[in-house]
Amino acid sequence: MPNVSVERIEKDLLTLSKFGFNEQDRGVYRQGFSDADMEARRWLMDLFKDLEMEPRMDGAGNVIGRFGSADKPCVMVGSHLDSVPAGGIFDGTLGVIAGVECIRTIRESNIHLDYPVEIVATSEEEGRFGGMLGAQALSGKVTLAWLENAKDAGGELLKDAMARHGFDYHDVLHARRDPDMVRAFLELHVEQGPVLEATHKSIGIVEGISGVFKWFVRLIGKADHAGTAPMDMRSDAFLGLADFTHEIQRIIDEEGTDRSRITIGFVELKPGFPHTVPGEVDFTIVGRDLDADVMKALANACRRVLSSIARKNGLMFEYEQMSWLEPKYCSSKVVDVIKNRAEGRGYSHMLMPSGAGHDAQFMTEITETGLIFVPSVNGVSHAPDEWTHWIDVERGANLLLDTLVDLATD
Amino acid sequence: MPNVSVERIEKDLLTLSKFGFNEQDRGVYRQGFSDADMEARRWLMDLFKDLEMEPRMDGAGNVIGRFGSADKPCVMVGSHLDSVPAGGIFDGTLGVIAGVECIRTIRESNIHLDYPVEIVATSEEEGRFGGMLGAQALSGKVTLAWLENAKDAGGELLKDAMARHGFDYHDVLHARRDPDMVRAFLELHVEQGPVLEATHKSIGIVEGISGVFKWFVRLIGKADHAGTAPMDMRSDAFLGLADFTHEIQRIIDEEGTDRSRITIGFVELKPGFPHTVPGEVDFTIVGRDLDADVMKALANACRRVLSSIARKNGLMFEYEQMSWLEPKYCSSKVVDVIKNRAEGRGYSHMLMPSGAGHDAQFMTEITETGLIFVPSVNGVSHAPDEWTHWIDVERGANLLLDTLVDLATD
Repeated sequence: MPNVSVERIEKDLLTLSKFGFNEQDRGVYRQGFSDADMEARRWLMDLFKDLEMEPRMDGAGNVIGRFGSADKPCVMVGSHLDSVPAGGIFDGTLGVIAGVECIRTIRESNIHLDYPVEIVATSEEEGRFGGMLGAQALSGKVTLAWLENAKDAGGELLKDAMARHGFDYHDVLHARRDPDMVRAFLELHVEQGPVLEATHKSIGIVEGISGVFKWFVRLIGKADHAGTAPMDMRSDAFLGLADFTHEIQRIIDEEGTDRSRITIGFVELKPGFPHTVPGEVDFTIVGRDLDADVMKALANACRRVLSSIARKNGLMFEYEQMSWLEPKYCSSKVVDVIKNRAEGRGYSHMLMPSGAGHDAQFMTEITETGLIFVPSVNGVSHAPDEWTHWIDVERGANLLLDTLVDLATD
Repeated sequence: MPNVSVERIEKDLLTLSKFGFNEQDRGVYRQGFSDADMEARRWLMDLFKDLEMEPRMDGAGNVIGRFGSADKPCVMVGSHLDSVPAGGIFDGTLGVIAGVECIRTIRESNIHLDYPVEIVATSEEEGRFGGMLGAQALSGKVTLAWLENAKDAGGELLKDAMARHGFDYHDVLHARRDPDMVRAFLELHVEQGPVLEATHKSIGIVEGISGVFKWFVRLIGKADHAGTAPMDMRSDAFLGLADFTHEIQRIIDEEGTDRSRITIGFVELKPGFPHTVPGEVDFTIVGRDLDADVMKALANACRRVLSSIARKNGLMFEYEQMSWLEPKYCSSKVVDVIKNRAEGRGYSHMLMPSGAGHDAQFMTEITETGLIFVPSVNGVSHAPDEWTHWIDVERGANLLLDTLVDLATD
């Protein structure tokens, strides 16, 4: 099998990084439906045109280039073009440009395919408007009511942001792809975590996107003067949270897996004064696992432990489940293909979950889906110093090429 | 020994409560140098006049009434007239009105005293301007620089608030009392804590006002995506705080006493997002004990434990000591008098520290000082539902009378 040209990938990624680049913080500002985002999409359409890939933009802003016959089911390859504010140059763009490079390599090397390939640059993956618009549209997971109400942090409506670029938001509902006409979806993405670097692997083969639950929890005791209330006459709500935090690793050891994560990222003490025993603590619990049953076991254990700590400490315990998203599984068939091809190339690799969301998670709704990770230096992403070594980019793109060719031939 | 009239104390406290009373929340708003505060002071001066106690207001706003000869050292009895916003009807006022009632009882019963008595209503004890102005002035613990710069939470300068009521702030420095002319200072106050009620005691005999230190502490790890960072690759700053919080009781058991308190009342996670592993946690530690050496041992233990937890968890640890106030001791001679008199009356009593600040703590600088507590229902103060049962008010006032008579006779 031939190799991709990592030099061309580098050139394209650096070109793309100019759309929305900020000289001050050296970050990329290419939020969904910004001017920079739309310019990047038009640039990509020109690139598709040069490769005779019949570029088109669907009603959700997804840019699609097709290589091969128009009437057979295709293998889709892609990721997103938009960025977070002050983002890096690899997140999303790598999956799009590596896909383009695969087509260039296939054309140059006259590799035979039995099925057409589509390269797709999805729109608004980073959630400026609270969803993953492009991938949701492709998989039919978007409603008119949501489209009419979604707004960004500054209060701008999605439909207004779309209208400024000539979109009618009703057309988002025409972007859904017929599952019969899609053989598979493949995405190459940077890991955005520390695991591959720490374990010296070039390739992460994603088994699925972890499910996630988010709880808002309240422990209520009694606020007291920190001077006049003796230690043994207090109902200090924060001591309850400290007790619970101590039990998290035990909960994972007993109920979870090495893919489980439980995080307390938000904490608010009330009244929150240095000289007052905290009468209340509000906090969030975010739990993740790749297995829905394990998620339930983790959640049940959190509830049991919190109840018991509240009882023991004379606290009241309330919680609200803010969200519960089930895990999404990649295709085991595609995972096997990726694994075999990685072994064929001699690339070090490991199976892993994805703890972050990706376009691929929606594509699992309509087709066999595969997601390949390459290492993030220091685990960093969503920041100007996001980086992936070019040798890892090359390996990821070669593996994408091999898998794509495998899936596009009988 | 005769008894005070608790009916007259009740009548006076209810009359006083009208100055600054708020019909909505039924709280008292009589902050230092407010109109309501000054009206209450004028009312008290009229009361002193009726009792032929030669009322005067000193340069700090303290209202003083003297009973007995002008040229001998006096026993001072008092507390403050100002309140916190939405305060109760006992905090401070009880010590003033009980003092007035002692004079009424002494007059009616023709009790012989060898020394004069002064009843004092101190100004601005609740710290609207960040100090305890009246008691600091009486004890000479106030500087011109502080007087010129002190301001309240709304930004109003103390000197401006004083000027509106006709004070020249330079005169505060004339309010200091000559220690040779003060035999003792006695204060009756509500406990503002749960101990007396919980232990079924009518009287708390205060041995001293606890010293207090306040630290601002920072634990710094690494912020990570809560989905992509495995549990064992995180530097979660909040886990360090949870570890420390768990050690607090052990630190007190090993280094402290039953008068020690360590409180974490303020906590801020950074960035504080539910889906982000907290890379930093800022928090306060407030520690108290009645013994300066114990305070030092507690502080040293906190530092050692934090260092060790930081090292173990791969966190950075910084702290700043915001304040360190030494304990202030009541007079053991006065404590003995109070104790004997409480036994004489058959009142249940206990020795205890004061964890809150009081006028008495400054008076220890110039004279033998005694502080008597009566129980607070549910330990509540600084709130409209602050309450003390009238039977306890009566006992406290009778004990104040006995002690006062003892200290004012040879």
